[in-house]
Amino acid sequence: MSDHVLFGVDGWGELATMADAADPKEWHILTDSVVEALCLPVLLEKVPRLRSVERTAIQSGEGNKTLITAEHVMARLLQQGMSRQGTLVCLGGGMITDLGGFIASVYKRGVRHINIPTTLMAQTDAALGGKTAINIGQVKNSVGTFHWPKLTVIDRIFLHTLPDSEVSSGMAEVIKHAIIADAGLFSLLEKCGRAMPDEAILSASARVKMRIVAADPMESGLRKALNFGHTVGHAIEGFCSLSADGRLSHGAAVAAGMRVESALALAQGLITRNDLNRILSLIDVWSDDEPKLSVADVPHLLALMANDKKNIGSRINFSLPDGIGSVLTDRWATPDEVRIALSTLMKP
Amino acid sequence: MSDHVLFGVDGWGELATMADAADPKEWHILTDSVVEALCLPVLLEKVPRLRSVERTAIQSGEGNKTLITAEHVMARLLQQGMSRQGTLVCLGGGMITDLGGFIASVYKRGVRHINIPTTLMAQTDAALGGKTAINIGQVKNSVGTFHWPKLTVIDRIFLHTLPDSEVSSGMAEVIKHAIIADAGLFSLLEKCGRAMPDEAILSASARVKMRIVAADPMESGLRKALNFGHTVGHAIEGFCSLSADGRLSHGAAVAAGMRVESALALAQGLITRNDLNRILSLIDVWSDDEPKLSVADVPHLLALMANDKKNIGSRINFSLPDGIGSVLTDRWATPDEVRIALSTLMKP
Repeated sequence: MSDHVLFGVDGWGELATMADAADPKEWHILTDSVVEALCLPVLLEKVPRLRSVERTAIQSGEGNKTLITAEHVMARLLQQGMSRQGTLVCLGGGMITDLGGFIASVYKRGVRHINIPTTLMAQTDAALGGKTAINIGQVKNSVGTFHWPKLTVIDRIFLHTLPDSEVSSGMAEVIKHAIIADAGLFSLLEKCGRAMPDEAILSASARVKMRIVAADPMESGLRKALNFGHTVGHAIEGFCSLSADGRLSHGAAVAAGMRVESALALAQGLITRNDLNRILSLIDVWSDDEPKLSVADVPHLLALMANDKKNIGSRINFSLPDGIGSVLTDRWATPDEVRIALSTLMKP
Repeated sequence: MSDHVLFGVDGWGELATMADAADPKEWHILTDSVVEALCLPVLLEKVPRLRSVERTAIQSGEGNKTLITAEHVMARLLQQGMSRQGTLVCLGGGMITDLGGFIASVYKRGVRHINIPTTLMAQTDAALGGKTAINIGQVKNSVGTFHWPKLTVIDRIFLHTLPDSEVSSGMAEVIKHAIIADAGLFSLLEKCGRAMPDEAILSASARVKMRIVAADPMESGLRKALNFGHTVGHAIEGFCSLSADGRLSHGAAVAAGMRVESALALAQGLITRNDLNRILSLIDVWSDDEPKLSVADVPHLLALMANDKKNIGSRINFSLPDGIGSVLTDRWATPDEVRIALSTLMKP
């Protein structure tokens, strides 16, 4: 119940060793139509043995993370004759690692899977931590399991296939990991400016997530530390999805959420004004499409936050930094305190 | 990772206590159209609190144990607003406990479920042991999880709703449990003749399954003891499903399988002639629609058995009794030995 993550050549080496020892008929590669074109050639070059493995490329897009798609893929695995000793290689962004992990957890009551995340968001967050997920209708991740990949291979070579907006969206989670648990990573990010993250950054970020997950694999408490920026972030995401120009990346919502929740941490005396300024400056570096709010939006956002099951009465539950590189879970704020903090996002 | 099973009044008492403490909005009853008419009134009389709980009755029949049905039910749970603290009550035969257990294991990454099996097959076998299952196309139970119910309530009152053929089918697994692990239960069954099993029989049978599962919850070895009668039984089931008059109950196939595998146990010197006679006589008591074979069928049956992944080379893997009330796993037989044992089933 923990992640086994290897970077670059180490990862490819271990994957090649596993593939060389395997019966190709027991392996299958799951990817999507976009990743197949951009990233599959890299995988087949790094691990030539996988050329003889069957594969399925589903349509890209979160809208295909459904039970129907899962059934389609599993029917292919049955047709191929994959047994309980099978291995599913998941090559793609969070959609593919969520879906493929789910399939691996239920096909014949569980087979091995290997994650090869190709987006920054997947490399630093979605593909780590053992959570698998499927959407039902509009309800994201309403179905899923806990199922850890046998191996996760992370290579920044794939990041060059991403549009700029995908990189900045993924950086929001990297910055979050730095704020909640790694002051050294935070300083490194401050120095690097807007350069594509190197392996040191990727691995430090992944280590934060893995450490927190290892302490709470089934999400019974401690894992809430990862929620920093997400109480407000999810409300903004939900709010924007209802509005006319509803396109907002998860990363942009989390970036905005971290601004508000850091202001809350300052108001509660948990961080200094200097900490807040450093946090806001670093978020600025990677800020692209963050939302701006008007006063009229605030009641809607508060209503969305009020729905959270972690709340007690009218007080809203947060995970807030108490310094750069440290976080406290189960902090509470009144709607009035949140309203003041939200002013950070107001249109000038 | 083990079963918590209560019988009759004890079961209803604990269920009522749980239901009384619960928010009815967090509970949901899953059943099928046939069971809803025959058994739901009993449940609502035993636990009146459940009258205010929402329910879904799916179409009865193994053909509905699909991901599509699971998605339909989960969409209803979402609509109702069931959280991760929810409870799914599964009232029905093996189809409902397989499907409902699967849903409970993946809805919001896992909620509680309670099994109330209403067929003899489910009470003595299918609803116990933590395996959940879904079919894909013609491939039975190709998808599933391990997920233990919080509580299983077994009441023989439901057995009176069953047609005779369902009772005799379920008795095959009861007899199997007696042969592999409970000589006392075997003697009890010999005394009772063809009377509807009483609670002593039901609970002894359930205890055999639970004891074996508890020693090997994730099916890594010991659980193979439960396979007695099933190596040949599955081959017969597969063979008959291909033939014109393909309707054969699972119990009848297992009964026929136990005849053949007991003959094999005699041939290998594991049981005495007297043991074999007692076994065959007890199976006779509950025998209804067991298949008779012709010489021409034998090669097809051997070919089906040859597919089993537990085999080594041409030798076929069995779990065979070594006396009444005891079993050995990983016994092997050559196709010629199996051919001779199959003569037990030949048309005169």
